[in-house]
Amino acid sequence: MKKFVNDPAKFVPEFMEGVALANPELLDYVPEFQLIKRKDRPVADKVSVIQGSGSGHEPAHVMAVGPGMLDGACQGAVFAAPPVDACYETIKALATDAGVLVLINNYQGDKMAWETAIELAEAEDIKVKAFFINDDVAVQDSLYTVGRRGVAGNFFVIKACGAAAAEGKSLEEVIAVAEKVNNNVRTMGVALTSCIPPAKGTTIFELADDEIEVGVGIHGEPGRRRDKIKAADAIVDELFEAVSTDLPFASGDRVALMVNGLGGTPISELYVLYARAHKLATDAGMTVARNYVGEYCTSLEMAGASLTLLKLDSELEGLLAAPAEIAIRTF
Amino acid sequence: MKKFVNDPAKFVPEFMEGVALANPELLDYVPEFQLIKRKDRPVADKVSVIQGSGSGHEPAHVMAVGPGMLDGACQGAVFAAPPVDACYETIKALATDAGVLVLINNYQGDKMAWETAIELAEAEDIKVKAFFINDDVAVQDSLYTVGRRGVAGNFFVIKACGAAAAEGKSLEEVIAVAEKVNNNVRTMGVALTSCIPPAKGTTIFELADDEIEVGVGIHGEPGRRRDKIKAADAIVDELFEAVSTDLPFASGDRVALMVNGLGGTPISELYVLYARAHKLATDAGMTVARNYVGEYCTSLEMAGASLTLLKLDSELEGLLAAPAEIAIRTF
Repeated sequence: MKKFVNDPAKFVPEFMEGVALANPELLDYVPEFQLIKRKDRPVADKVSVIQGSGSGHEPAHVMAVGPGMLDGACQGAVFAAPPVDACYETIKALATDAGVLVLINNYQGDKMAWETAIELAEAEDIKVKAFFINDDVAVQDSLYTVGRRGVAGNFFVIKACGAAAAEGKSLEEVIAVAEKVNNNVRTMGVALTSCIPPAKGTTIFELADDEIEVGVGIHGEPGRRRDKIKAADAIVDELFEAVSTDLPFASGDRVALMVNGLGGTPISELYVLYARAHKLATDAGMTVARNYVGEYCTSLEMAGASLTLLKLDSELEGLLAAPAEIAIRTF
Repeated sequence: MKKFVNDPAKFVPEFMEGVALANPELLDYVPEFQLIKRKDRPVADKVSVIQGSGSGHEPAHVMAVGPGMLDGACQGAVFAAPPVDACYETIKALATDAGVLVLINNYQGDKMAWETAIELAEAEDIKVKAFFINDDVAVQDSLYTVGRRGVAGNFFVIKACGAAAAEGKSLEEVIAVAEKVNNNVRTMGVALTSCIPPAKGTTIFELADDEIEVGVGIHGEPGRRRDKIKAADAIVDELFEAVSTDLPFASGDRVALMVNGLGGTPISELYVLYARAHKLATDAGMTVARNYVGEYCTSLEMAGASLTLLKLDSELEGLLAAPAEIAIRTF
């Protein structure tokens, strides 16, 4: 295992400490709950939007904390749900009169942890609601889910809800935004390689030198099928077909188009994928109103990518265009 | 070779097309010269800041075009200098009364191509100057250089010169900014893996499963020595020692601190490195006034990172803080 790691058991707190040190004015870091929150939140009359999941998907979720995005996030070990007490403390740390919205990617572990934490918080009269994201079209049920998985479409739910909360919308209104995004967003990914969780020290699944996993989950869960490596355009064609026919998207739609890197794929390759996806969308009569190319929801150093389409209306376009800032910046 | 590639010979134009399609309002793309430029440049009374080098280092250089950054950039094949005519056409496309500044990372191939192109442009009375960046402390001469190599410190030269040009500074003044940054910036990198140029199809150098290359160049050139993989903190300690003693940096300095990923390393690991580097800088009495964690100058999908320190004064802090925008955005 060749990684930038000290003690594998301390990998998560060490990178969280790095994020906190890089953002002394923006963020508070609470090591005992692996929790990062905005320094200037909670605010009584604003809905707090929070999240929490296993680590290894960075920038999701603790690096997506900032104005117009998440107000706080906690995380578990790599690919493991956060403990109930971390979820509970995150809710409590961000509780407001307007309420807390917990955005949960649909995995059994996360669901159980958050639902228990929400019960505990409600017993203390904290106003808190859960919303489940399930944008992955690859498979119906899977290794860690009943129903579809939540993957990179998560970014759009965060962005839109973060903007709606910043505007002062009510908890019910912010939930309505989450529903609208989740109902209109679809994703599918492909892995070229596996990845190695530091504490495990070995790959989470095996792929031969000439194989790819089509429809892979962000924890390396099986997708639709194994295939041989093929041309980038052919891979995009398959992802685009799966994603666009699922909603379905149609000619005349205004869409946001995302090519998300899974961690080990260079940005140059992501733009090769984007070029093809953009053409497919345009040829299908869609207008790509906004585009997103980069890393949003990763699987450690896995080489691979996912493709996400979000159908827009004027409300969503406005929310996506609203100003936002996250803990990781390149400038 | 498992990559998102169609015809390897078309890898560079295909990803450039993706960048152009993603930025229809910001950028013009000229395929015959692998040139990307700002649509709203040149402007007669502003210095144009341009660059051009081999591909494979993205976002450097064609993805670093935008307001307050580069006005244009061209590129050659992966790890190969751009052809003279591409350099010449880039100068010509961005020529202004105020002049053109070409920022060149110090490699023999780039130097020769740009110097010839500059001669051709000067013969047409275009005002143009070259500036060479050489921030890599790892080795004195190397495989492709006489003198030190230009690596991730390049970002700071672009950012500061782009801001100075946007302010309306003269060519001589912008060159003075480049000199100040280059004189005060130092970098060293480490590779955990090699990488595979698409057209080559095989790794550019070999590293055993337990080896790292300390002081690696961004084309996989040898650095100072091979070592066995070791704890992240020990790696940072060696990079920090090499970089900080070279200028030297001293207690009381205000610095910009960058941890640059080489392409295949996830951002979580980069923040593990950042946490250590931040502590070392602080322990040495420096103030980290600005920090940068992410990918700025890469080597395709190489796993690895580099550490850069820039000594700041009030002028440089102002220039780094100035607004800027590049062709790749996450929002």
